[in-house]
Amino acid sequence: MSSIVDRLEEEILVLDGAMGTELQKRGLEVGDCPEELNLTHPKILKEIHSSYVKAGSDIIQTNTFGANRLKLAEYNLAHKIEKINQQAVKLATEVAGDDVFISASIGPTGKLLEPLGDLSFQQAYHVFGEQAQILEAAGADLINIETMTDLQEARAALIAVKEKTSLPVIINLTYEENLKTMTGTDPQTAITVFEALGADVIGANCSLGPKKLVEIIKLMGQYTATPLCVQPNAGLPVLNENNETIFPMEALEMANYIPQFIEAGVNIIGGCCGSTPEYINLAKKKVVDITPASRIKKKETTLASRTKRVVISDNLPTRIIGERINPTGREELSHQLADEKMELVAKEASNQVQAGADILDVNVGVPQIDQAQAMKLALNTVHNVVDIPVSIDTTNQEVLEAGLQTIVGKPLINSVTGEEESLNTVLPLAKKYGAAVLGLTLDEDGIPATAQGRLKVAKKILNRAQQLGIKRENVLIDTLTLAASAEQDKVLETIKAIELIKEELGLATVLGVSNISYGLPAREEVNTAFLAMAIQAGLNAPILDPTNKAMQATLKASDLLVNRDLQGQNYLNHYSNQEERKKEEKEEKLETTDSLTKL
Amino acid sequence: MSSIVDRLEEEILVLDGAMGTELQKRGLEVGDCPEELNLTHPKILKEIHSSYVKAGSDIIQTNTFGANRLKLAEYNLAHKIEKINQQAVKLATEVAGDDVFISASIGPTGKLLEPLGDLSFQQAYHVFGEQAQILEAAGADLINIETMTDLQEARAALIAVKEKTSLPVIINLTYEENLKTMTGTDPQTAITVFEALGADVIGANCSLGPKKLVEIIKLMGQYTATPLCVQPNAGLPVLNENNETIFPMEALEMANYIPQFIEAGVNIIGGCCGSTPEYINLAKKKVVDITPASRIKKKETTLASRTKRVVISDNLPTRIIGERINPTGREELSHQLADEKMELVAKEASNQVQAGADILDVNVGVPQIDQAQAMKLALNTVHNVVDIPVSIDTTNQEVLEAGLQTIVGKPLINSVTGEEESLNTVLPLAKKYGAAVLGLTLDEDGIPATAQGRLKVAKKILNRAQQLGIKRENVLIDTLTLAASAEQDKVLETIKAIELIKEELGLATVLGVSNISYGLPAREEVNTAFLAMAIQAGLNAPILDPTNKAMQATLKASDLLVNRDLQGQNYLNHYSNQEERKKEEKEEKLETTDSLTKL
Ligand SMILES: [Zn+2]
Ligand SMILES: [Zn+2]
Ligand SMILES: [Zn+2]
Repeated sequence: MSSIVDRLEEEILVLDGAMGTELQKRGLEVGDCPEELNLTHPKILKEIHSSYVKAGSDIIQTNTFGANRLKLAEYNLAHKIEKINQQAVKLATEVAGDDVFISASIGPTGKLLEPLGDLSFQQAYHVFGEQAQILEAAGADLINIETMTDLQEARAALIAVKEKTSLPVIINLTYEENLKTMTGTDPQTAITVFEALGADVIGANCSLGPKKLVEIIKLMGQYTATPLCVQPNAGLPVLNENNETIFPMEALEMANYIPQFIEAGVNIIGGCCGSTPEYINLAKKKVVDITPASRIKKKETTLASRTKRVVISDNLPTRIIGERINPTGREELSHQLADEKMELVAKEASNQVQAGADILDVNVGVPQIDQAQAMKLALNTVHNVVDIPVSIDTTNQEVLEAGLQTIVGKPLINSVTGEEESLNTVLPLAKKYGAAVLGLTLDEDGIPATAQGRLKVAKKILNRAQQLGIKRENVLIDTLTLAASAEQDKVLETIKAIELIKEELGLATVLGVSNISYGLPAREEVNTAFLAMAIQAGLNAPILDPTNKAMQATLKASDLLVNRDLQGQNYLNHYSNQEERKKEEKEEKLETTDSLTKL
Repeated sequence: MSSIVDRLEEEILVLDGAMGTELQKRGLEVGDCPEELNLTHPKILKEIHSSYVKAGSDIIQTNTFGANRLKLAEYNLAHKIEKINQQAVKLATEVAGDDVFISASIGPTGKLLEPLGDLSFQQAYHVFGEQAQILEAAGADLINIETMTDLQEARAALIAVKEKTSLPVIINLTYEENLKTMTGTDPQTAITVFEALGADVIGANCSLGPKKLVEIIKLMGQYTATPLCVQPNAGLPVLNENNETIFPMEALEMANYIPQFIEAGVNIIGGCCGSTPEYINLAKKKVVDITPASRIKKKETTLASRTKRVVISDNLPTRIIGERINPTGREELSHQLADEKMELVAKEASNQVQAGADILDVNVGVPQIDQAQAMKLALNTVHNVVDIPVSIDTTNQEVLEAGLQTIVGKPLINSVTGEEESLNTVLPLAKKYGAAVLGLTLDEDGIPATAQGRLKVAKKILNRAQQLGIKRENVLIDTLTLAASAEQDKVLETIKAIELIKEELGLATVLGVSNISYGLPAREEVNTAFLAMAIQAGLNAPILDPTNKAMQATLKASDLLVNRDLQGQNYLNHYSNQEERKKEEKEEKLETTDSLTKL
């Protein structure tokens, strides 16, 4: 049997339909543990599996949706976790035959992860890892993480499954009316996070019935070339005359959506709550001999928060990485970080986003404090006050991993260098946690004097990242700004290095700008000129203070000039907003004056 | 006999010594016309020539120093101009033999040219052209324009000789104690102007004796690879006991300077007032079998005013071409130009130079006025109030030629295009008047959309200029700024075109900057960003408003960044000056306040 992922290139595969509703039909009561039936009523399970195999399923799913330690504990069955999961795979395998894949279902824990809830990333990671390992050992062919409503829980599950097993993984979120998950993630953001984590198939299940899911799959198809999966439910549940929950949509009506899913680019079609073998049979007939719609493989550099996706690209506006959450030379911020107070972090996050930051760099490098804890608190604070992706700025491995576990989304790691120690510690973490990584062009010999030398380090970093399976678009390069006052002859090497990186490697580029003017008077003048030059050379994402008006003005003007700001819309908005703000300020002033006069 | 210019590569040639003092020895009285002796005492002339040939002169000079129409008129001999000059060449030729060159001497008119005096360029041009044509027709091998003390007169003479004859030309200025000519020109500025005009040999004569002339030839040797000539006088004239003017330096003492001249790189050595056949004989002995010192051929783009030379080079600070003398959209300036009033031109010239302009663009394009006259007046005004080179900005051939005749120094012509009509009219004028020329990258088909297209036009302009004998360093290229609001996608083509021009042609580049922001709000922001990008790409000389502080700040910062401002000296000065000015302004304010308080 060839690998499922390979087959998805040529065929649309059919999953099975609902398990839960089929069990209810066969007597499962509300309040029973559905997965306990694997042990108590194996024949029922085999009957259901068999009905789907007969209906034409290429993949059937194990009855393990709630068979994780936390869910089982609700039924006091945590001690049976191994048996329940093993038995589930065994029952499906006995029915499947040689041509049907066994997909092991993994559902949510039922608890919210930090920072929204109490469950830590680490706890969730262990829960999912444990279940996945049992399922793989029992003989599952793939794992389907499904019905996830929270990005962070999905992320913990996906990381655990990828880390603890070598099985292909489908990951399905459940979306609401507004095309977002319960905790606010839209499909394109989810895709950004899951692709970086190495998901083999990405999809949506349950949700609001097939009609809404067509919209979601269409959207996904525009953002990814990764195989897509859809498992619609049979509409929204309603109560029937006997006060039983039923799913209203008939098999035929559901199956009528299949052509739309195919057109949207789907690769695996199954069903969720309320779907039946009849529906699966109709679905199978519609996909036979159909080749999946081809989708364009975009290789964009993307970062994500829980709710927002930021693309870094030569054709798009220059992205600002806000530099202000950094205690270097800032006494009050240092004190607060040491005291684990996050007021200033919150303020800097909010101010920078209001000023136009696209990404926030978070650095908690105060000596002799618990930086891992400070990083966790700072990232959660940032998460709570703003909605943009972050750059985790540390050279400490433990702090970095704490950050990578805490952050919801796809962060940037700032940074890795060409030094062996750095490559060996940072890159595996980037791969594991689905982060993009910023490569600084320096190595054991320091910063190469020439642009060519820095290109060479960039190539080394890229090669090593790719060897680990990190995609090239997830490697960004910083060609390193040296102070013009100290090394004037190297300024142009930094700029030239950006051009070389673009020409030879095509990677996204990052540069801390303000160091250029260290030790000079009128630093802003040098910073703005350097920024314009760097953007012209191909800089995609400067690290700077977004609240600095001169830098913002130069950035907006530069984007207009290098055609990253189509028809100058950002530029014109920037200045019309300023005009409006001035007008408002004036009016406020007048009002204040009026009030004062009246006193 | 091989050409004199060819021989200068291998040999140091010896000119003759004084004519005037030799004639005085033979009875010429003060107040007599020395050149009339050609007709009245031909034997004396032949005797003197003969003495120099015997002493070893490779070149002897005709007795025609004052034989121009204006000088001869002082003796009522203008009607004999042909005979006097013809006879002079004939007498020298009869003595010379086959191995000695006949150099025809041309001296000053004795009148100052405009704007310092009354003699117009055109008058001077005709006077020198007339004499030169007679001398060539009579059989002279070369022409030596000598003892010139005013750059503009020398320029008129050189242009006339090059235009009216096909003889090689030596041009010698006479310098004073401060190493400048009477009207303020230093050797390097003179070289800049004379090289552009195609002088074959450049030098210094008379002046303050050989010691000072060694300094001048040394200086010249650092700035040019053109063959150098020196004809020292025998020290400064003194009165002897008989109340006769004599030159005190002995032949042997003079000849002792010959090794220093050789070391400085001289190619032709002769003598001026007071020098004798004895000195020439000693000189000849010292140069026999000596190869001239080789000098480095610099191919720098240079412009010059009467007293100042401006080099445009990638390694030097970006040069500002001040754009404010231009009536476009400026009513008051238009009115003044129409009324031939030059107050505002003077003010703009002075303000721009004070603000740091290196070159002043002069445009008098008011419709329906006498632009040729306006150009002449404007250039003379600029000449009188400031000392930097100009760019003559007109598309009208007549106005251009008026400007080229008026201007003292080596101007830039703004501009020629790739259009046949423009190439055919502008380039010959640039060649004739020794101007650098700014090529706009457009042709009959308009402005090419791509950088490659603009490079192609630049190549065409360069080729055509070189075919006319204009050196490549005298061709500058403007890759044309289009308004970002109208043609956003072409902005980068302008920048890329600068890079291409640099890479492929190595020419100096010019760009009018502010057009980039036409139609946009906050124009300064776009202008400064564009300026930084263009400088990074290789822009050498932006056309801009030097009184604009933001542009100045960006320019200074950019130069620091691209390493055109070594160790940031200009940048640091710029800001320390600003600090000082602020302090001064503050103090003034305080004083004013003090005064007010006391009232
Ligand atoms: Zn469902
Ligand atoms: Zn389901
Ligand atoms: Zn003399």
